Amino acid sequence: MSKPYVVGIDIGGTNTVFGIVNARGQVVASDSVKTLKHSNFEDYIADVHEGLSRLIKANELEGQIQGIGIGAPNANYYTGEIQNPPNLPWGNVIPLAETVSKAFDGIPVAITNDANAAALGEMTYGAARGMKDFIMITLGTGVGSGIVINGQLVYGHDGFAGELGHVTMKRHNGRVCGCGRTGCLEAYCSATGVARTAREFLEIRQEPSLLNNLDIDAITSKDVYDAAMAGDKLAKEIFNYTGTILGEALADFVTFSSPQAIILFGGLAKSGDLLMNPVKESFNKNIFHAFKGKCKIMISELKESDAAVLGASALGWEAKYHYEAPVAAAAADPSTTAIPVEPEK
Amino acid sequence: MSKPYVVGIDIGGTNTVFGIVNARGQVVASDSVKTLKHSNFEDYIADVHEGLSRLIKANELEGQIQGIGIGAPNANYYTGEIQNPPNLPWGNVIPLAETVSKAFDGIPVAITNDANAAALGEMTYGAARGMKDFIMITLGTGVGSGIVINGQLVYGHDGFAGELGHVTMKRHNGRVCGCGRTGCLEAYCSATGVARTAREFLEIRQEPSLLNNLDIDAITSKDVYDAAMAGDKLAKEIFNYTGTILGEALADFVTFSSPQAIILFGGLAKSGDLLMNPVKESFNKNIFHAFKGKCKIMISELKESDAAVLGASALGWEAKYHYEAPVAAAAADPSTTAIPVEPEK
Repeated sequence: MSKPYVVGIDIGGTNTVFGIVNARGQVVASDSVKTLKHSNFEDYIADVHEGLSRLIKANELEGQIQGIGIGAPNANYYTGEIQNPPNLPWGNVIPLAETVSKAFDGIPVAITNDANAAALGEMTYGAARGMKDFIMITLGTGVGSGIVINGQLVYGHDGFAGELGHVTMKRHNGRVCGCGRTGCLEAYCSATGVARTAREFLEIRQEPSLLNNLDIDAITSKDVYDAAMAGDKLAKEIFNYTGTILGEALADFVTFSSPQAIILFGGLAKSGDLLMNPVKESFNKNIFHAFKGKCKIMISELKESDAAVLGASALGWEAKYHYEAPVAAAAADPSTTAIPVEPEK
Repeated sequence: MSKPYVVGIDIGGTNTVFGIVNARGQVVASDSVKTLKHSNFEDYIADVHEGLSRLIKANELEGQIQGIGIGAPNANYYTGEIQNPPNLPWGNVIPLAETVSKAFDGIPVAITNDANAAALGEMTYGAARGMKDFIMITLGTGVGSGIVINGQLVYGHDGFAGELGHVTMKRHNGRVCGCGRTGCLEAYCSATGVARTAREFLEIRQEPSLLNNLDIDAITSKDVYDAAMAGDKLAKEIFNYTGTILGEALADFVTFSSPQAIILFGGLAKSGDLLMNPVKESFNKNIFHAFKGKCKIMISELKESDAAVLGASALGWEAKYHYEAPVAAAAADPSTTAIPVEPEK
């Protein structure tokens, strides 16, 4: 019988947030640790284990955790490993699922990247409840995506499907992207992309703008948002430019999987009509006729503070892999009764 | 128990080809009728029924057909209808599955578009045997696609997923596409796209070319192929141009579903290295680093003359919808024993 709680862990570049979630999608308790406090991976996991164990104990939930879901950069669902993460210091292949399951005496663990976790969260608890086909686009520092087809997350043959932030939107004179290529969606439609657009516009254009009062090198997407909300014309144009490119990209995505909805999540998605109006206009202008009027563009219904933990926790319900102690140790320790289960492909 | 044969029907704009296929993927017998001989849909189906019944009888296969799979333009897998076909004269909503199943006394029928059928054929009998994640790209008069994820064809929420011929490759000064939009992949990388490229190049460039000997308005992709094989420099450049755009598109597709392979099918795919070399070069140059070296570009292994029938027939094995006579008629005719089954979503 399945147990009544799951744990969600979101491993970000700065903080690692974790929480205990019940079947109704309520975060019962949560806490966080600094991700980069420890240069050693085992020490980091010990830190997470300690914090999480404290939460479990304080809420008297020992033995009631069905599984642990983890959202982490470059997490491979199939292998349970973080592979070649750009911003974590623990090596190129980090055995995340195994180490966490071992720390928690064999509780099943499943891992995926944060955008996939967000899609699962949206499907389990948010705007995509009841949907079998949708695409989640996360608009944060970068642009991520989680694709659901036929009610299942798309992992691809290698566990890394859904990198829609890196489709090419500008084939000529495209901006250099963090990935080393040029013209990627992420270079335009992320929070950093909006700031780059602001800098480009301010360098070229001579008209007055509230943004001229700011240090051009330190401008953020939040500054552009504030200026636009104060009626600044140039700031509004920056959102139009961003939304137009995003709408073009979303129209292309629909030709792939014909989803019921595309759900936008993350800081930029909270810009409301400033972003959504140009996105929808561009989307409707560019969409292939067979899909016209069939696919909604929506904003996530998950509270951002909870979303990362909720999304990761949704994976916990179906986690299958769990650590099994080596045979000799198992013989010595009769409490180890885990049955080995391979991560599914 | 399942019966040992299936029927595949491929409805093209000119010919309708049908054949009987065994479980090893051999076309036991096949024939064709002219698709547009009849302006009335029922007369057309009667024609197909007559031809196919003759084949079944001649091979003594009465009662041994498990199902009928049909590949047709704008075919909706979920509803069993052809919806808004651009080149068929039988109305906007054509009840294809129902009419065919009725004509064949309730044999189960499933329908999809020709590119999806090709993908199923490749998975069942061709280069994609054993693959769970691949993309089929058909390079014919247009560019079509069939996407397989986790061993299942992607139909999308409306039955029309996989229109990758209509992603936008040129956002500025793009060619007008048959779909009414501009810059679509299909406008460049189809057989007609290659002919358009030839006309564009010949109008702009002054250098000698074998293609200058031809009527510019009548040039076909075959002419360009022949000239390139004869060593013509301009003709080779046309293939380079085509392959470069196709490689860029395929690299974007990989970010979506991270397939093991992309399989090219259709007339242009038979151009061999002329097309494949620039495709692979462009693909490798443009692919996102996480997918580098992981996705093969392959050419279909299906014999083109059989492929359409084979692909459609593969759908026959899993066909579930079948026509059930109305209750009154059923009472009058005890041979009608079909159990109603809804087309699956």
